[in-house]
Parts: sequence; C-alpha cells; structure tokens
Amino acid sequence: MLAQRLIERKRDGGRLDAGEWRALVNAYAAGHVADYQMAAFLMACFIRGMDRAETSSLMSAMLNSGEKLDLAYLGVPRVDKHSSGGVGDKVSLVLAPLIASMGVAVPMMSGRGLGHTGGTLDKLEAIPGFRTNLSLDEARAQLESLHVVMIGQSREIAPADKKMYALRDATSTVESIPLIAASIMSKKMAEGLVGLVLDVKRGSGAFLPDLERDLELAGTMIQLGDDHGCPVTCLVTAMDRPLGRACGNALEVEESILALRGEGPADLMEVTYALGAEMLLLAGTHATREDARRDMAIQIGNGKAAECFQKIIEAQGGNPGVVDDPAVLPQADQCELYAAPRRGFVSRIEPRTVGRGVIALGGGRTKMEDTIDPTVGFVISSRPGDWVESGEPMATIFARDRAGIEAGRAALATAITVADEAEPPLPLVSHRVTKGGVEDLSSQSS
Amino acid sequence: MLAQRLIERKRDGGRLDAGEWRALVNAYAAGHVADYQMAAFLMACFIRGMDRAETSSLMSAMLNSGEKLDLAYLGVPRVDKHSSGGVGDKVSLVLAPLIASMGVAVPMMSGRGLGHTGGTLDKLEAIPGFRTNLSLDEARAQLESLHVVMIGQSREIAPADKKMYALRDATSTVESIPLIAASIMSKKMAEGLVGLVLDVKRGSGAFLPDLERDLELAGTMIQLGDDHGCPVTCLVTAMDRPLGRACGNALEVEESILALRGEGPADLMEVTYALGAEMLLLAGTHATREDARRDMAIQIGNGKAAECFQKIIEAQGGNPGVVDDPAVLPQADQCELYAAPRRGFVSRIEPRTVGRGVIALGGGRTKMEDTIDPTVGFVISSRPGDWVESGEPMATIFARDRAGIEAGRAALATAITVADEAEPPLPLVSHRVTKGGVEDLSSQSS
Repeated sequence: MLAQRLIERKRDGGRLDAGEWRALVNAYAAGHVADYQMAAFLMACFIRGMDRAETSSLMSAMLNSGEKLDLAYLGVPRVDKHSSGGVGDKVSLVLAPLIASMGVAVPMMSGRGLGHTGGTLDKLEAIPGFRTNLSLDEARAQLESLHVVMIGQSREIAPADKKMYALRDATSTVESIPLIAASIMSKKMAEGLVGLVLDVKRGSGAFLPDLERDLELAGTMIQLGDDHGCPVTCLVTAMDRPLGRACGNALEVEESILALRGEGPADLMEVTYALGAEMLLLAGTHATREDARRDMAIQIGNGKAAECFQKIIEAQGGNPGVVDDPAVLPQADQCELYAAPRRGFVSRIEPRTVGRGVIALGGGRTKMEDTIDPTVGFVISSRPGDWVESGEPMATIFARDRAGIEAGRAALATAITVADEAEPPLPLVSHRVTKGGVEDLSSQSS
Repeated sequence: MLAQRLIERKRDGGRLDAGEWRALVNAYAAGHVADYQMAAFLMACFIRGMDRAETSSLMSAMLNSGEKLDLAYLGVPRVDKHSSGGVGDKVSLVLAPLIASMGVAVPMMSGRGLGHTGGTLDKLEAIPGFRTNLSLDEARAQLESLHVVMIGQSREIAPADKKMYALRDATSTVESIPLIAASIMSKKMAEGLVGLVLDVKRGSGAFLPDLERDLELAGTMIQLGDDHGCPVTCLVTAMDRPLGRACGNALEVEESILALRGEGPADLMEVTYALGAEMLLLAGTHATREDARRDMAIQIGNGKAAECFQKIIEAQGGNPGVVDDPAVLPQADQCELYAAPRRGFVSRIEPRTVGRGVIALGGGRTKMEDTIDPTVGFVISSRPGDWVESGEPMATIFARDRAGIEAGRAALATAITVADEAEPPLPLVSHRVTKGGVEDLSSQSS
C-alpha cells in the first residue's frame, strides 16, 4: 500500500519525490489515506525534516487540491500580507483598506485565533453583521468592485491543507517550519498575487520565539514563493510586548479605526507603515520606501483609507457606521482600571500572558469550536520603558462580569512587571529578509 | 489536553512516567484518545526510542487493560514459548502437546501469519473444525482438564495491545524493539506463567535479520519478564532457510504430526528439543538439558506427545483422526515436482522468497482480512549444502490450479540457488540469552 511505504521511508529519514507528495496529498484529501496514517507520516516529517524540494512539492500538492484565483484581469497589481501571529496584532485591519485605497488589489485570506494569539477573522466578526465566509465567487465579485476582500480560507482553496492543518493541531505536529511554511504558502499562492509580505513575529509572545527559527521560517517561505514565481519580502517584528494598546476583538477593531484615522499608537503605525511600504514596493506602485510611507500617510490623512474600510464592511454585510462611531461595536458589561502595583519602570508586558488573559475572559479559544465574546479584553496604556507611580492607571480591563474583572486583574498582575530598571525592548522592526538575504535593520535604526 | 502534551514530549525526545503511560493507554483503549493521536505518538516513540522503564510501563498498561489468567491453582508449573516468526516454523504445534504431556501446563496464545511469515493459528485452522477463538472461560476449563490450550489473543487479554497493534500495522510503526517487546510481553504476562522461552529468529528470513537487533529484542523481553517476576530464556535460531521441509498451512500440520511421531526432519527436531529443554528447565521439572531432551524423546517415542495433540484437537472441535491419518487434512488440487535447474551444491534457500511464494499461491495474507487456502505451499526436500544433479527433484509444489503451480515454480526458481560451492548456513541454535547474559552456543556445537 502506497501510504505505508511512504510513511516508512519518511520514518527512516528518506525523502519523497514530487509525484509521491502529490499522490499522498490527493489520496488523503479524497479519504483514501486514513487520518491515522497521515498523522504518523506528519510526525515522521516533523522529526526527520523535509528538504526544500519536498516542502515545495507539498505546497504545490496542497495548492493544487483546490481552486486558484486568477486576478490578472483586474488590471492592477495584487499583494497580500501574512503575519505569523501575535497579541494585539491588528495590522491586517489597517493595511488591507489602506493599500487597497492606493490602487493595489488586496485579496486577503486570514485565519482565526487559536492559542494565545488573536485572529483577523475574529476581530472582523466583532463588527455587527460582518461576514468573513464569502464564497470564492462572492470574493471574486467584490475584488472586481472594490479591489479588496477580507475573508477566511474558503472551502474551495487548498482543501487538503485545511484537512491536514486540523490533523496537525490535534497531533502536536504544528511547529514544524516546512509544514508551517507549506501550509501558509499553499493558501497565499492561490490568491493570484504579484507579491507577498510576511510579518514574522519574534520574542516571547511569538509562535517561534527564536530569531534563528524566525529567519529559517522566513527563508523557507521566500523560497516557496520564489519557486512559484511570487516575490516575498519578510520583516521580523517585535512580539516581546503586545502591539498597540488594545487586546481583544472589538477593542482591536476600535484601535484599527483610530489608526485608519491617523490616531493609532506609534508602534502600531510604525509596523503598519513598514509592512505597507514593502507591499507597495512589490506592487510596483512605488520605487522607494520613503515615497510609499509618504503616500500612505496621505491616504490616512485625507480619509481615503478609512473610507475604504467602510466600503469593505458594507460590502461584507457589516454595519459601516462603525468607522464613524466605534460605539456601534458591542460593549463589555464591566470595565475597570488596573493600577501600577508600585513605582518604577514598566520592564515587561508579557504578550503570552496577556493573550491567555483574553482567553480567560472569554475572548479567545482553547479549541476550534469555542465561541468567543468580542467585547472583552484589555487596553494597556503603559509601554515598556515608561515610568509609573504606585497606583497610577496602567490599563483598563473589559469583562462580562466581576469574575472576569478579577481574572483580568490576575492576568495583568502576572503579565506586567514594574521594576527598578527598564529592560530594553526588542527593536520594533529588526530584520528585512528577501531572496537576496537578511538585512539587520536594528543596527541602522535611529 | 493530555494526549497532545504527551505526544509533544515524546516528539521532542522526552519520556513519560508510569502514570502517564497508564493514562494514555487507558484513554486510547476507552476511545478518548483518537487513532490519529496515538498514531502520531507511536511514530514519535518509534523514532525517538523508549527507555527500559518506559517499555515496562507500556507493557504493564497494556497488560492491565485486560484480564489475566491466574493458573497457580492448577498445581503444575506453566510455561509458554514465543517465536519472533519465520518460514516453516511449526515448532509450536509440536512443543505444546509435547511439553503438556510431561506434566507442565502450556497456556499458548499465538498469532496469525502476516507478511512472509506463517502463523500458528492459521496452521491449526487447517485441521477441519479446529477452533482457535475460545473464550477465556473456555480456555480456563480446557487448561483444567488438559493443561494445554492453543488459542489466539482472546478479546479479554490486553485489548489495548490489540488496538495498538492494528494501528501500528497500518502506520508503519511495527519494527520498533520496545514496541514489539511490550506488545508480545503484555500478552504473555497475562498467561500466568512461571517461565517463558523465546525463539528469536536470525537471518534473511527473520523479522529482524540482524543478530545485534535480535539480541537487543531478546534482552528487552528478558528485562520485561524480569520486571514482572517471570524468568525468560531466549534462544537465537537460524532463519536463513525455512525450518523443516514443509511451508504452507496443512503441509506444516502434517509435518508437525510426523515430528510428534518421531519422524520429523532433523532441523525441526533439533530446534524443538532445544526450546523444549529450556521450557522444562524453567518449569523446574528437569535440572539439566540432557535429562529434558531424553524425556522429550521418550514422550515422542511412546506416543504420549502425539496423543496429547489428539486430545487438544478434539477439545477444540477439530477432527482428531488427523493425527493417525494426515490425509484427513484438506488436499491441494494440483501438485508437481520442482527439479534442480543444474548440478551443484544447494547454496541458498531464501526463506523470505519461499514465504512470499506461499502467499502468491493463496496460502498467506497481504492484509489481515484476506482468507487463506490451507492446502497450498511447498515441501522442499533439499537442504542447503546438499549436492544435486540437474533435473533431480528438490521440492513439491502444492497449488489450486495451473497458474498456482507456475507461480510456485517461479518462486522456487528465485528462492533456491544451486551453485558450484556450498555456502555455510547459520548455526541452527546460535545463542542462549538469559538475565545473566548472552552465551554463544555456535562455538560449542559439535
């Protein structure tokens, strides 16, 4: 039997050729290879590793298990951004309308939160009525009219990946760089892009906290893009603290709207502009990052970016009034301030603990079928390095009830460290990785 | 979730403690851990390995998932023999009645053939009417009356092992020494034995062809027995050629009956006596191997061993007339001689090819649900080292039809090499392994 022979080969450290990957993935998608066989195979891949050609073959097989968007007829460049996931990371909500407002199409397919990290789909669904589950035909129609769509992985796209990802999640075979890279890229390469920007998070709150592993993931995805004729630029950004102030679905939508109006927190704007500039360079609309940044700031200043977000919300069934009045968003029943426990420097705001705190409040998932409460979360106004006096408000906790407030308080007490000395945070954008190599930006930053 | 944490730990080269093994095995047996999770876990065990304590914990957990026989009340010692599997290996059919006829109880649980090796149950079922699927209560009753039973793994014994073995077979995680050892011993330790003899096969037709791996398997099973208070003696025997002349289910029953009558081929008798002597030493009925061998020869000579086989067959629903007249066994429709293709020495009779030839004739399985034809197979009268003239009969092929005869002929043509020089075969019984260490017997043999 095919499956057993291939499992055996991978188990013993061998490799599969492109035809074997295709046959195995197709047989699995069709139900001819059992879940338990694929689980054993994936564990062997996890432990033994996969070379570049194998990773590319797996990606192609998953990509070709479904439909692909061909968007060349739109007559505009198509780019997307993908993040490896973090806490408070609402960049996609700002970037998609911002870039789309500049004559570049953004066919954005995102995921849900799982573990301590949030997900773009959950955030968007905090907007009353917003539909993320468009069919591929609906998505195509919206891309024609608006040049932007913000949806989940539709069932037509890379169904083999969807099935394998669910299996990996249940069998502790997620954190493998080739498997992660092939999974992400099998969906992104179905979007018909001319370029892709990756935001690989680094630091204690990141999926892969090690810089070395981050660069390996970036390099693998860049190679996969290159193998499929799609240039990829990767920025390594900080996730040793939450990004921006808001953590929690509706709260993050509100902060994204502030950002689209030019009132976003500095760190969120910096990461958004850095990633957006790379998207515009790949799209070919701008030749330098300085030009790109200047034009993005203009689009935010003149209201076009916010207007585009309003159109997206309206097209996808949401209440567009949210952009003018974020109070339209569902509101938490209770909110309370969190005060500094002592005077000193804010030395750590541990994102993983903050993310788990949002879950404890009911705003995240521990399993895929959990429903989430969009209203709960934190707005943390203090930043690492700030000086605070004892009793000074540092954050606001949003919860369903008293028990939630207490759970939130406990989470922040663990997450936030106030000490005699400040710890130097990671540089916000530390590395830029392309096919050409790794550029260390932290040594160049002012 | 428990399963994912344990999979993750094993994946990363860690170990589980006894309580974790028990919890995991019980949760799997109860259906609370999915097949795909156990498959990923077993692959991690296969690649990362398991230490002695872990192997023992797994064995105990599987053992305790089911019932155990407590046979102390029989008032006689209880021993069993287990073979790692070979071609033409019908030793169990001779040993069980032989040893039981000597005042020692033999609660023998055997397996079916899979791959190129045969299985004791399939051989016994070639006897018209013979039932191997007795319930544990039926087995107990027969042990009281006859002191011997020859059955399959009843569903009451180590059900967790049964479920895990089927999964391993489908996921290419069979050939792991700790997993093999724990699986075998979880069943054997349920038999309420005072001693166990292992026949670990060595050579090209063995499951683990390497002597080094054979000794590792022997050592692991000896340790597992020791951990559970059951002394284990292991003999390493030759499987670089089939054992005896007959290969095929009914043909092997016939040869076993010949052996019980004192007319068995020399190699089969030698391995039977060697293993039987170790069983009697462990039972404590004999103090030296010489005494044990002498008494076994007496039991065969006086017909008591054959008589005991007759009683077993009768008790288990088979036609006991087969012992007096093997023609009662189902007969193949066609048989034909196989002649030497040239003159020379018989330098190789490759057991794996012979075993696959039996499968090609319809007498073995490629999957567990295949039904088998008991009549087909080979009787190979030539032995490695014999001189043959061109055209001289070397073997008889038993088949259903012409196509079978031709398939059998092709198999023998590949399996048997006649050459100018004889190749020295492996010593029939080369090593004796106990808790005390490894004894090399080949240097001592006459």
